[in-house]
Amino acid sequence: MTLMADEIAEQPVAVARTLEALLPLRPEVRRVAAGRRLLLFVARGSSDNAAIYGRYLLEATVGVTAALAAPSIATHYRRERDLSDALVVSLSQSGRTEEIVETQRWARRCGAATLAVTNHADSPLAAGADLALVTRAGDERAVPATKSYTAQLSALAVLASSLEDGDTLAKELTAVPDAVGSMLDTDVEAVVDVLARARETLVTGRGICLGTALETGLKLEETCLRPVRGLSYADLRHGPFAVVDPDVTAVVVAPGDGPLLAPLTELTEQLRDRGASVVGIGGDQRLRAACHAALPGPGLTETVAPLALVVPAQLAVESLARRLGLDPDSPRGLSKVTQTDPDQPDSGGVQ
Amino acid sequence: MTLMADEIAEQPVAVARTLEALLPLRPEVRRVAAGRRLLLFVARGSSDNAAIYGRYLLEATVGVTAALAAPSIATHYRRERDLSDALVVSLSQSGRTEEIVETQRWARRCGAATLAVTNHADSPLAAGADLALVTRAGDERAVPATKSYTAQLSALAVLASSLEDGDTLAKELTAVPDAVGSMLDTDVEAVVDVLARARETLVTGRGICLGTALETGLKLEETCLRPVRGLSYADLRHGPFAVVDPDVTAVVVAPGDGPLLAPLTELTEQLRDRGASVVGIGGDQRLRAACHAALPGPGLTETVAPLALVVPAQLAVESLARRLGLDPDSPRGLSKVTQTDPDQPDSGGVQ
Repeated sequence: MTLMADEIAEQPVAVARTLEALLPLRPEVRRVAAGRRLLLFVARGSSDNAAIYGRYLLEATVGVTAALAAPSIATHYRRERDLSDALVVSLSQSGRTEEIVETQRWARRCGAATLAVTNHADSPLAAGADLALVTRAGDERAVPATKSYTAQLSALAVLASSLEDGDTLAKELTAVPDAVGSMLDTDVEAVVDVLARARETLVTGRGICLGTALETGLKLEETCLRPVRGLSYADLRHGPFAVVDPDVTAVVVAPGDGPLLAPLTELTEQLRDRGASVVGIGGDQRLRAACHAALPGPGLTETVAPLALVVPAQLAVESLARRLGLDPDSPRGLSKVTQTDPDQPDSGGVQ
Repeated sequence: MTLMADEIAEQPVAVARTLEALLPLRPEVRRVAAGRRLLLFVARGSSDNAAIYGRYLLEATVGVTAALAAPSIATHYRRERDLSDALVVSLSQSGRTEEIVETQRWARRCGAATLAVTNHADSPLAAGADLALVTRAGDERAVPATKSYTAQLSALAVLASSLEDGDTLAKELTAVPDAVGSMLDTDVEAVVDVLARARETLVTGRGICLGTALETGLKLEETCLRPVRGLSYADLRHGPFAVVDPDVTAVVVAPGDGPLLAPLTELTEQLRDRGASVVGIGGDQRLRAACHAALPGPGLTETVAPLALVVPAQLAVESLARRLGLDPDSPRGLSKVTQTDPDQPDSGGVQ
């Protein structure tokens, strides 16, 4: 067993413990968010993909404007502005990525309320925030983030459930740990066969599950050293669709319900009509039937599906890496804490 | 001459006419934006790349929060929210892309002030907005957007100059039409040689010129039918950098000044150290010296550089398409007005 495989398997516990620890903090989240009209996420890499889930979830269920901040405005342009109407949510599993810590400091100076989502309670990110949602993923030793990523998604679902009217999300979350567990024995061999033959790989999705698609692409890229394009199907139609041909392997990541299932199914059929090799992750039976190989998703509603839907994708990536003779635990050229500007004077000593 | 080459050459006039027509509207822009704390852009494709310029420009110079809206919240999740603090800026050269028109209608229902940026005064997008900034690109016949794109950038620079304290941007804009003209005789052959040999192409930049990098990638993809990954260098470092090797051709798009020039130069040198073929667009002499081939940018400050910096990229794309035996005017699989969801009942009849 690789460390990555071990940590994929630890996710039912990581998610359950994180939900158990954070759901009681909902009154504190509401207190920190009180009077804030805008949510801004600050994140990079896998945390950025988690933030994209948080963004769609909050806009679709809570009805608040949520967006991803551009850290360079803080770290390079050094332009302050009035953020007294904003809650800034910073995500970093280590809590030590200097760019994220610096942007959180900037947000605070600008008057924002600050919420940190990190796996390390003793990190500068947690220490610098008005409130820290500390995930309970446990120590993550493989370089590719797996359980720390699903724990971040759990924290973001708690954030949304803190701000929603009623308790729809809170109820949906009770089914999640078991659903994560049910994904662990997914048979990924047929999908790995297709991915192993891929020349150009493209991963697509949209809406609440877009982050899952992008995370699948990032994992394939960093763990299997495949160049992968990850993009919304809407952006795919506005240009890149032109280059879809039999050289392309397209991975479609879809929820099992919701308003995007039908258009994602139609897209899947069109990708196949253009000669692409198509892999499905999630969706329903009709979507999967249009694929050359597919992995079923969890029986969860779209709003919480990403917490489990990424698991079969992680299993496929881990298996593909071994098939390609690569070590999934230590991909070439990556370290556990990435510094965006490694030579900046204030970023030393945190690797 | 191709239509695309003609239209690239028309840009000094398109930009000058657009600036001349729109700069006098600054008081009206200020009136529509009064009391709005948040700017949300709604766009797809090349217009989305223009919006990314607008987003960074407004955050870096005006100091207002600016972000890209997720249209699916309006068109698929149909979730309304309070946008009474927002100015929603919708971009579509045709003014007829149904997804954009529908999202603008949603924004208005939610209480947003609405500003349309379009090349067609008689379009539904212009008719549905509180104020339309109608660009003066003239009729665009080639499918790849060139002059309509730089005209959009001009409109966004006018928007920012309407909201800035003082008239720094307005003064910088006076130099732009001549700078656009000076780019037209760029010799692109050495760069086309490198791009023609490319197996995997990656385009990167950051900050105010990130949109230019993404537009360069989109043009290469849709016009030259190359799969291209376009991403911020910050995101590149968080994962995809692992797959940079001698198989990769990296295109670095950089301003000639500003806080991102130094880190982009460092990135260029590191890409070359990893064995990638590196093409530079813009930057300074040191950045270009680190490239295998490079195109100088305009002598404009970073805030307005994107209006001219894309021109050498367009010239290289047009030349590369012909070198590859493709017709740059009518790329495979694209039409002038893209519908994101072609089968939706409300999107008929607008092709």
